[in-house]
This record gives sequence, C-alpha cells and structure tokens, in this order.
Amino acid sequence: MSYNTFGHMFRVTTWGESHGPAIGCVIDGCPPGIPLTESDIQPFLDKRRPGQSRFTTQRQEEDRVRILSGVFPNEAGVQVTTGTPIALEIQNTDQRSKDYSDIKDKFRPGHADFTYVEKYGIRDYRGGGRSSARETAMRVAAGAVARKVVPGIVIRGALVQVGAEQIDRARWDWAEVERNPFFAPDASIVERWTVYLDGVRKAGSSCGAVVEVVAEGAPAGLGAPLYGKLDQDIAAAFMSINAVKGVEIGEGFASAALSGEDNADEMRIGPDGQPVFLSNHAGGILGGISTGQPIVARFAVKPTSSILTPRRTIDAQGHDAEILTKGRHDPCVGIRAVPVGEAMMAMVLADHWLRHRAQTGR
Amino acid sequence: MSYNTFGHMFRVTTWGESHGPAIGCVIDGCPPGIPLTESDIQPFLDKRRPGQSRFTTQRQEEDRVRILSGVFPNEAGVQVTTGTPIALEIQNTDQRSKDYSDIKDKFRPGHADFTYVEKYGIRDYRGGGRSSARETAMRVAAGAVARKVVPGIVIRGALVQVGAEQIDRARWDWAEVERNPFFAPDASIVERWTVYLDGVRKAGSSCGAVVEVVAEGAPAGLGAPLYGKLDQDIAAAFMSINAVKGVEIGEGFASAALSGEDNADEMRIGPDGQPVFLSNHAGGILGGISTGQPIVARFAVKPTSSILTPRRTIDAQGHDAEILTKGRHDPCVGIRAVPVGEAMMAMVLADHWLRHRAQTGR
Amino acid sequence: MSYNTFGHMFRVTTWGESHGPAIGCVIDGCPPGIPLTESDIQPFLDKRRPGQSRFTTQRQEEDRVRILSGVFPNEAGVQVTTGTPIALEIQNTDQRSKDYSDIKDKFRPGHADFTYVEKYGIRDYRGGGRSSARETAMRVAAGAVARKVVPGIVIRGALVQVGAEQIDRARWDWAEVERNPFFAPDASIVERWTVYLDGVRKAGSSCGAVVEVVAEGAPAGLGAPLYGKLDQDIAAAFMSINAVKGVEIGEGFASAALSGEDNADEMRIGPDGQPVFLSNHAGGILGGISTGQPIVARFAVKPTSSILTPRRTIDAQGHDAEILTKGRHDPCVGIRAVPVGEAMMAMVLADHWLRHRAQTGR
Amino acid sequence: MSYNTFGHMFRVTTWGESHGPAIGCVIDGCPPGIPLTESDIQPFLDKRRPGQSRFTTQRQEEDRVRILSGVFPNEAGVQVTTGTPIALEIQNTDQRSKDYSDIKDKFRPGHADFTYVEKYGIRDYRGGGRSSARETAMRVAAGAVARKVVPGIVIRGALVQVGAEQIDRARWDWAEVERNPFFAPDASIVERWTVYLDGVRKAGSSCGAVVEVVAEGAPAGLGAPLYGKLDQDIAAAFMSINAVKGVEIGEGFASAALSGEDNADEMRIGPDGQPVFLSNHAGGILGGISTGQPIVARFAVKPTSSILTPRRTIDAQGHDAEILTKGRHDPCVGIRAVPVGEAMMAMVLADHWLRHRAQTGR
Repeated sequence: MSYNTFGHMFRVTTWGESHGPAIGCVIDGCPPGIPLTESDIQPFLDKRRPGQSRFTTQRQEEDRVRILSGVFPNEAGVQVTTGTPIALEIQNTDQRSKDYSDIKDKFRPGHADFTYVEKYGIRDYRGGGRSSARETAMRVAAGAVARKVVPGIVIRGALVQVGAEQIDRARWDWAEVERNPFFAPDASIVERWTVYLDGVRKAGSSCGAVVEVVAEGAPAGLGAPLYGKLDQDIAAAFMSINAVKGVEIGEGFASAALSGEDNADEMRIGPDGQPVFLSNHAGGILGGISTGQPIVARFAVKPTSSILTPRRTIDAQGHDAEILTKGRHDPCVGIRAVPVGEAMMAMVLADHWLRHRAQTGR
Repeated sequence: MSYNTFGHMFRVTTWGESHGPAIGCVIDGCPPGIPLTESDIQPFLDKRRPGQSRFTTQRQEEDRVRILSGVFPNEAGVQVTTGTPIALEIQNTDQRSKDYSDIKDKFRPGHADFTYVEKYGIRDYRGGGRSSARETAMRVAAGAVARKVVPGIVIRGALVQVGAEQIDRARWDWAEVERNPFFAPDASIVERWTVYLDGVRKAGSSCGAVVEVVAEGAPAGLGAPLYGKLDQDIAAAFMSINAVKGVEIGEGFASAALSGEDNADEMRIGPDGQPVFLSNHAGGILGGISTGQPIVARFAVKPTSSILTPRRTIDAQGHDAEILTKGRHDPCVGIRAVPVGEAMMAMVLADHWLRHRAQTGR
Repeated sequence: MSYNTFGHMFRVTTWGESHGPAIGCVIDGCPPGIPLTESDIQPFLDKRRPGQSRFTTQRQEEDRVRILSGVFPNEAGVQVTTGTPIALEIQNTDQRSKDYSDIKDKFRPGHADFTYVEKYGIRDYRGGGRSSARETAMRVAAGAVARKVVPGIVIRGALVQVGAEQIDRARWDWAEVERNPFFAPDASIVERWTVYLDGVRKAGSSCGAVVEVVAEGAPAGLGAPLYGKLDQDIAAAFMSINAVKGVEIGEGFASAALSGEDNADEMRIGPDGQPVFLSNHAGGILGGISTGQPIVARFAVKPTSSILTPRRTIDAQGHDAEILTKGRHDPCVGIRAVPVGEAMMAMVLADHWLRHRAQTGR
Repeated sequence: MSYNTFGHMFRVTTWGESHGPAIGCVIDGCPPGIPLTESDIQPFLDKRRPGQSRFTTQRQEEDRVRILSGVFPNEAGVQVTTGTPIALEIQNTDQRSKDYSDIKDKFRPGHADFTYVEKYGIRDYRGGGRSSARETAMRVAAGAVARKVVPGIVIRGALVQVGAEQIDRARWDWAEVERNPFFAPDASIVERWTVYLDGVRKAGSSCGAVVEVVAEGAPAGLGAPLYGKLDQDIAAAFMSINAVKGVEIGEGFASAALSGEDNADEMRIGPDGQPVFLSNHAGGILGGISTGQPIVARFAVKPTSSILTPRRTIDAQGHDAEILTKGRHDPCVGIRAVPVGEAMMAMVLADHWLRHRAQTGR
C-alpha cells in the first residue's frame, strides 16, 4: 500500500519537496557489511546535478548528501552498513524566493498541478513541490547504494534518441557516454543533437528523448512468476520516473513485427561448457526471470512540460487562462533521466537479488 | 514480497499449472455488497477461451468458473460479496496425455524453460506449467470482479497491430471489435490480417501484436506520487502478462519526438463549468494521477515462441540440440491478450479506486 | 494491506466459510525442492480434527486435504515443491442443513456477529461463516508445509492451563502430550481436567485455556529490528487465532515482577566453545531476534462463546432479545488451539528464516 | 517485507541510532488537509522525554522535532498535511563521548547485543545503537500525527503495575495520570511506588511494569478477518516496543479462568435506540473488529536490562566475562513506555481507520 516507497526487500522511501528545507530517503533492507561512505554516493549525484551544461536547468545546488544512520566502522575501521535503515539527506540550498502567484493559481499543462489538486485539494506549488524532478536526486543516491548490493554488476545508461533523432547503434561506445553532455554512446550524433537542442532551447520549446539502460553481470534466476517478474518491476521502476510514458525490454515494441523464428534467442553450449545465447532479443529476461545475458531496457521521456510558449489552461477559480513557464528548465529532461534510469535499474536488481537469495539460498 | 499476488487493496493471488487438476485465484479486499454470480464472470472467460477461431489454440476447455467463497444472499435474496475472500476455480479438463519427453529435456527458445530451471532447479514442464498462458484465465476472471468495484467505469481493449500492420485509427469503431476474431476496431484491416495470419499459421511461424486498452469513466485523482503512480501500476500489470515486452501510456514512445507545445494537453472551462482537456496526449494520467480523461495504454506482445520451425537450443544435460514445438498453439498470442489486458486494467483501477477512497474519503 | 494473508516471504492466504462448498489456502513463497505430499499434511489435520473426544465439537469432517498446485516429481521421482504457489483445499462435507433463523437475526455475545454486520452490512451466518474456527484447518495445513522449510526445527505445543487450573511445570513431559485428549504435558492433571471439563460440558457452559508453544532448533539471528521483530510476528500470529486474547514470550507478564538481576539470562562459553545461556527468561528472543535458545510463547484462549445458557442480546432489527447456542461446540476451544498455535509458530519461523537468508545469505 | 516500517495505509518508517547525528521518521499515507505543526507533536515528546524525574534516565535531550516535508499552508493560511510524506527529525544533542570499550566487546544480558552480532556481524554499540529506546521518540512523534487522523478519538495510557504492585482499579482517575511521575491512575499507589522505586534505584537494580492503553471514540467496524484483525495489529504494535514481553486485550490472560457466561458481553438496545454492551470483557474487539466500546489493551515491560549489579556474560572473542552497565538508565523503563504505548495504539487505529474507509466508504 506504499505511495512513496519502492522495492520489497531493498526498500527505498523518499520524502521532500523541491523548495522545502531538505529532501531525503530511507533505505531499509540493505544487507550488513557493505562498505559505504558519502563518497560512494556523491559521484552519481554529481552526474545528475543540474547546471552542468546549457542543456540542463541552471538551478545551482551543491546536492551534498549526508548519511545519517545505518553505517558504522567495522573491526578494520572501514565504515560499513549495519543492516539498520540508512537515512540519506540533501539540504535544499537554491530555493530562490520568487513570485509563484502564476503557477499557484493556474494549472500548467503536462504537469501534475491539476491532478494533485483534484486528489489532495492542496499542493506545495513552489518549484513543483513533491512532483518536482528534484526528487530524483534521492533515487540516484539510493541507486548508488543499490549498486553495491549485487556482486559484480555493472549498470550503465545512455541516451539513444533526442526528439526524433536516434543514435547509430553500430557506433555504440560506452566510453563516449562520459565525454558528451548528452550521455550519448555515439560520438557522431553529438554535434547534431547540440544544434537541435540549441534550437529547441532558443525557441523556448522542449523535446523528448529515449533512454537505454543495460545491466551486465546479473546472474540468471532473478525474478519470479507471475506478479514478481523482473521485467514487471523494471517497467514499474522506469514508469515511476517523472515524464516517462513508455517502457520496453529487449526488442520491445519492435518485437510485434518480428516472426517467432527471428525473435527466438537460440542457444548453444559454449567452449567452456556453459550455455550461450546466440542473440538477446529478449533483453535478458524470459518468463520474467533473468537469463544471465545483459538486461536491456528503454524508456521514453516526454518533452519537458515547462515551456516559454504560452498555452491555454484554466485557473483554480474555474476561469480560462494562459500560462507560460518562466525560469530555469531543462529543454530535454531526458538527458538527466539517464542516471535516474540507472539508479532505478540498480534498485530493482538489488531487490530481486535479495528475493532470489531468500528463495534459493544462492 | 509477493510472487503470485497482484494489487494492494484489491489483491488477486493466482495458483495452478496448465496441466494440474485445476487453476484458481483468491480475490481479497473486494468491498462487500457487490452483486456477484458466476454469470458475471463467465462471459469474459468465454471471450478469452481458446479454440474460437483458427487463429487461436485449438485446446478445448470449457473454462467453467466456480465461486467457492465470499458471496452470500443479501436481504433481498441477491447474491452479493461479503467482504471476505472470493475464491474462484476452474477445473482443467483438456490436459491431453502426450509425450513431453522433448520439452522435458530441452529448453524452448523464448520460453521460460531455461530460466525456471536456473532459478528453481525444477519445473512442471507439461504444457508450460506455471508459465502457461492458461494462468491468464484467472486474470480474466478476477478482472470481471474488479470491473464491478469502480462505479461507472467502462474498460475496452482492441488489437491495433498484428505483425507490422497497424490499424487505421481514423476508422476506430468499438462496435467492430465484437465482430471479428481479432478484436480489431478497424473493419478495413480484418481481411488483411486474415490473409497475413493464415500465412503465418501455415508456415508454422508466429507473429507479434500490439494491444490497446482504454478505460472510460475513471474519476480524476486515482494514483499517487511517487511510487504509487497509476501509470506505474498499469505498466507493471501489462508487463506481468506472458510475452509482453513493452508498455506505453498515451503518446508513449512517440512522445519523444513531440515538442512541448504539441504534447501539452491544453485546458478550457467547458459549457457546463467543468474543466475540459482539448487533447489527451497524456493518456489520461498526469504526475501519476488520473485526469478524468480516458486512460489509454498499449502493450506489445512478442511473437509466440512455440513454432514449428526447428530452432537451435541446448538440453538439460548440457548438449546442443534442436527443438520445434508441435501441438496446439496460437500463431499470435496477442489476440487472446486483449481480454487479459482489459482485466489487468480493471484490477489496477479497482485497486487505486480503493486506495483513493482510503486517502480522501471519496 | 492484506486481510486474509499471513506472512511476507512465506505467505499464506486462506479462504472459505464454514458452510460453503470448501475451504482452502494458497501458500506463496515456499522454496523449491522440498518433498511434499498430502501425507505430510494430513496427520496435523487429523490432530486438530473435531470429534475426537467428548471435549471437542462433534462435527464430523474427514478434513481430507488435496494439493492442487505447486508440486511436481523431481528427477528421482519424489514429489517436491517447485517454487510456484501451493494451493490446498478441503471439501466441506458436514454442513448439516439446519435452522439458522436464530443466529441469522440475533447477535451472539462474544462472537463476531455484531462486528461483521457493523463493518460489512452482511455475513454468512451459517456456522459462523468466515469467522468459524473451521478456518484454522487451513492454518494447520499450511503450518505443516512451513515446518518443512526451516531445517532441523521442532515445534511442539501443549495446553498448560484449563479454566484456572495450571499444569505442574516440574512434571512436563512432551511424550505425555500425545497420550491425553488435552495435549497436556503433565499426566497428573489429566484426571482433574477431565472431571472439570465434564462439569463444564454438562452445565452447557465453557471455559478458557492457555496454550504454550515451544520451537527448538531455530538458529540465532531470526527476526529484525524494529517492526520486523520475531516476537512481534509471533504475537500477531497467535492473536490472529480465533478467541485469543493474550500473548506472551518467555516470562511474559510475570517478568514485570522480576528484578533486572533475576531476569537477566547470563551467558558462559560452553565446553564446546559455543555460547551458552544459563537461563531462558527471554523465551529465546532478545531485541526481536532469536538467540538460538528454544523459543517459548504462550497465548490465552477465552471461553467458548457458544454456550447453552441464555444470554441477553439484541437482534438485527434493533430489539432486545435472548439467545442460547445449540448444536455442536467445543466446551474449551483452547484444546484444539494447540495444533493451530504450532502451525502459526511454524509459519512465522519459515517466514523469518527466508527473510534472514535474504539479508545475510545464511 | 518491512523491517523498520509500521503500518499499511498509515505507514511509519523510523531510522537512526542512539548516538548518530539524528533520528527521524517518514510518515507515508497520511490524508491531506489535516492541520499539523511542530506544536502538535512536541507536547507528546515532552511527556516521553527523559530526565523529568529521578525515576527516568538523566540523559538530557531537548528532543525538538522538525517537520521537513509534507505540510503546506492552505487557502486560510493554516499549515496542513498535503498527502505527501511527512518527514520528522530530531537532532541527537547529548551523545556524551564516553568509553564504550566495555559494551563494545561484551554482550549485556537482556540486551540485543548478542543477537545483533549474531545476525548482522556488526552493530553500532554506542548507547545501544539502533536498539536503544531512543527510537521510541519517533514513535511518539508519529503517534501524535496519527491521533489527528481518526476523528473524535481519545487515546490514553496509564501504568497499572510496577514490580509486583498493581493499582487499585476502583480508584482509577485519568486526571491523576498527569499529576505523578509514574502516569499512575491511582493516587493511592504513588507513595508506595515512590518508595519501592527509590529502593530499586539505589540498589542499582531495576523492575518491570504493566502499561494499559485505552482508546475511546473508535467507531465499530475497524479491523478485518482474519490476518488483519485489529487486536492482532495492536499485539504486534505493542510487542514491537523495546522490552515488551506480553500483550493482552480486554480480560486477556484472565479470560482463561472465566466461564462463557461470565465472559459474554451481553447487549441491550439503549434509550437512544442504539446498541449498548453491558460489559467489556472483550476489550472492545470481537472477531478482530472493533465493537464501538473502548478498546482496552495492556502490555508487560520486563525489568530494565541495564543494571549496576555485575552479571556473567561472554565477550565477542569467546571468553567468559562479567559486565555491569554504568551510566544513565531508567530503573523502570515501563514508565516512559506509557506515551509510547499510546502512540502505537494511535498508529494502529489510524491505519485501520483508513483501511476501513477504503473498504466501506465510511
């Protein structure tokens, strides 16, 4: 019955609004004995942090995370998890005092303004309040902890589409992802995206994107029939990210157009006597359970709803109105969604790895 | 921590294997006082039942559902729910005794065979056991109950793509869905799909499909931030269906290519003083909460993995092998997934409607 | 948010009313590979079965359990669990058709009649419907499965008090429990209880009892701070049994009168180098986590509410009335609560053992 | 699968160790629109705060609570809940730096030291770490919020037994509870308890106690069959409090010695046409569901385990040892457990009130 908790065994509960005093999360169920300091988490927050290029919001926050509980030095003096809840907190330092009278009374199209008021009758409208993408900072922080739970796992994300422009998969290079402001794995598209996004930004418009996340090193056997499928939880995880409107695994929607023969991931016994899949159309998941191949998943991010072009709307008093959203915004929120997607994948895998260990003893 | 339970307030736990004595489910959390007899459930099962056209498996099961608990005649003599768990059961009557030695020892590509053995070390291989699409009969049965929970709701599904061929949305006619064996809402495509699927079937091949489910009449306010989003639970619900590899809400993946202006669902005050949305790119959900517009979601079904063309695989003893799957199979499992998708949507909405009532008293 | 489910990792959902066609349960989360047939379960049901002495209800039910899913022969031909849900079912065969007009309209004091109607507005009044002790048959069945989950565990229960008469703990003999109709561990009390209960029965009255359950062989480390304490879950488990009004662990309520010195379970290193506790006031649980000592818990069962002496009550139409409950009833429901208490303890330990394995890998 | 979360609809997750930088909790599921400021919470914390008499620990903490999220001014300028998670935090200000070498290496009898190390292999031993009673401050804080959820409810606790000395129930006066340092409802016992506890304290010993909590104004209908019983959740709530070893409802263990006639709470139609119970042996709960009468529950608290008398124990290196616990301790932790018990009762009732509203719309 959770509203603000993700996961079953590895549980993350986030709290906080964009312009409150702080945001935070509690991680419950993390196994004991895992080395953990703030320096394990901070780099992932830095990667997500706004203001790093002209393509992301200019909000300036240091986003310095503190661990408030759940760690203690072990015999060797190394700070490790103790099995008790890990509380993480980030102070909000750049809540510019501004005039919110506009968004206070008008419902911004594409935002959660209307629905929050419909449901709760009240909302903290400052900076989007609880529905602000600022909450994703805690996902990234919790994801950094989750990465340490599953041994040998490597989780990486990349931006594979901006607007209508997709990367060339033949040029995929993970090293390239670190080198450009888009997390693009294809060097050849960076210039095109730069020009395109500059245009979008200058026009006061916005665009959507598609993010791909790949997890390597996950063992076979994670997941469960039938309502505990690994891909079901990945879908839920990604769809819980702000602005996400679609999720797919492996071939995803493209699989509809494949034949059964083409979509089959054939198998052979490899030279080392281990099973080998000859392809990975399934994205590493069959029957809801991991195959041991890389887990491949994508999600679509809609265009940023905050735009400088006026849109028709209504106000809280029931009158027609117009609104345009001034201020600091990402022209393409999909860019900063890359580390968020990685974090959600890490949380799902940590959760299922613990479930798997419970049920199988492995 | 559930593996075989769906939902939080309206909870459905299914059990049973394809070739065991029976399959069943327990519905817990259904409000009391709702009129319910087997005849409320049976028509939905009949709609899903195999063997109704040459495009679905020829397995012949009556799929006659029994209600074993949770109902009682009220003062007026009408059988209603009592608030206690509702147990539903269907006997398995067509478990043909056949030779399973082939699938017993070999892992069928695209099936859960390999992963179940990796996880559990054992599986009931007869007819796919627990991973058989037969389990979806209980989803449809539970969905029929769920439909009665939310007042005034209408949930309908349609097949919008078979293989690479999509319907013409301009010709959408819900009445047409009942008239053809594909649940197609576009009469003009029926002939084309017939020819195409006959070809697929005769070739011993298979193809994928895309299903769209639309829920009308859901009130604004269903859902919750941030890990209780309505679209998150729809995504999980659809992805929990066998063979589903992608899920999207409203514009879905297409939203990536839209501009913020085009994707904005503008609002006006209607003639009756009520808010009106001028479009529904969001698919009826903003910030994870329903807007009151129709909820529109789609899912992609991969091609049936059981095909007559031999595929390379391995056997349980670690040798290379070949396999082809004889017997009764749907060339396109996406067709029968339509009533299953409707049922999952009904369960999600019943669940969220109850959560909403808890939190708001409405 | 469950209403009819017990447990988190080892989850049992029961369904069914006293006079419906059947009762059943679904066990979800049971690890794979555990040998399981009906003959592992039936003996525990036989132990609980009514009609075995004049001190328990004369309802005659064979209580023959069927396993409908979740098991399959392994390579060696032994039927084992597969990791999928295990459905158990018992047909109701002795629902005597009788005149229910009395309990249909009047609320029996001490029963759930009034509160069910207050909550749900309707109830299946036949034989108590859902609130009948008949439901405990499924607990016993599920408990039989749970016993097989934790290696090396022995769970035994005994009746330690009937009415005001307590056993002599110095005479405790587990072997005696099997030899008398009260599950009394003290042979010297059997005659006294026999006389006392004959008097109660003949007077058309009833009495309460106290049950003690001891689990030996549970490893240290089961449980968790702070809302996942082992004793918390044992308390919930026992209090979920019909007619139970009190639960205690170790010294329980008596600990209030002890000094800190007396209540301390001192420790020494034993001859084998292992920690040894010199006493077990704590009942095998410290800080919510098992110590490795025997887990000792008790629960109090109120006197059977169905008595032949007329009591004042009201009817559903809002008039004063009188009621006495004819028919087959246990003068002391505490007797048959012994196997039920054992079963609940087994479920709690199975659940925590799986949680423990998840979090620690042991 | 929660370890540090209590509740289903009204969920409280606590975090923090005794000597970490802070302790806190997140309340999720609280309905929107409830007026809430720190001043609603602080009085309950002040009541629980240590150092208020010589019978409680002299640790000096201001225990000043801050609300970090989940509230916002409504139209009228009143700060109310918004339906988003409410984060509460208290800085730890009196973590005296002291020498922990003794409890670092030795397991204090009666404490969680041994079991935490058995389970997790590590623990924050400073001041008891996570198992410190300090955590109960967050229960009290969350309970203060929970009290505001159920309209018209009054929850009060009292100490009814210290050591072996019980109050005289005939002298029960709720007003007296506020006037003495024991929360005793019987003025005549205050002097006796004072003398007794002074003796216990001076002897460096400790004693146990029994706390009674009464909730008035709860509507009939809260609770659910069979594993969602109201008394089951009260039992779990109380047993989750440190040092609690027993829980009972209404007559509790004493009911075992009653006859069915004596234990029956008879009913009449009152002068106002409403049902009236003529007694309340059941403690306000029948069949797991509230009757509308006062809900009466008790719990037993064992003697404080930290005592000045040396006890035999072992150390982490596997040697026999002796330990006595110096420093600031409550001679009778049961005293300060009174506001904690009230808080847990409030949480259970808020949780069930929300569940009830979900299922019945009332």
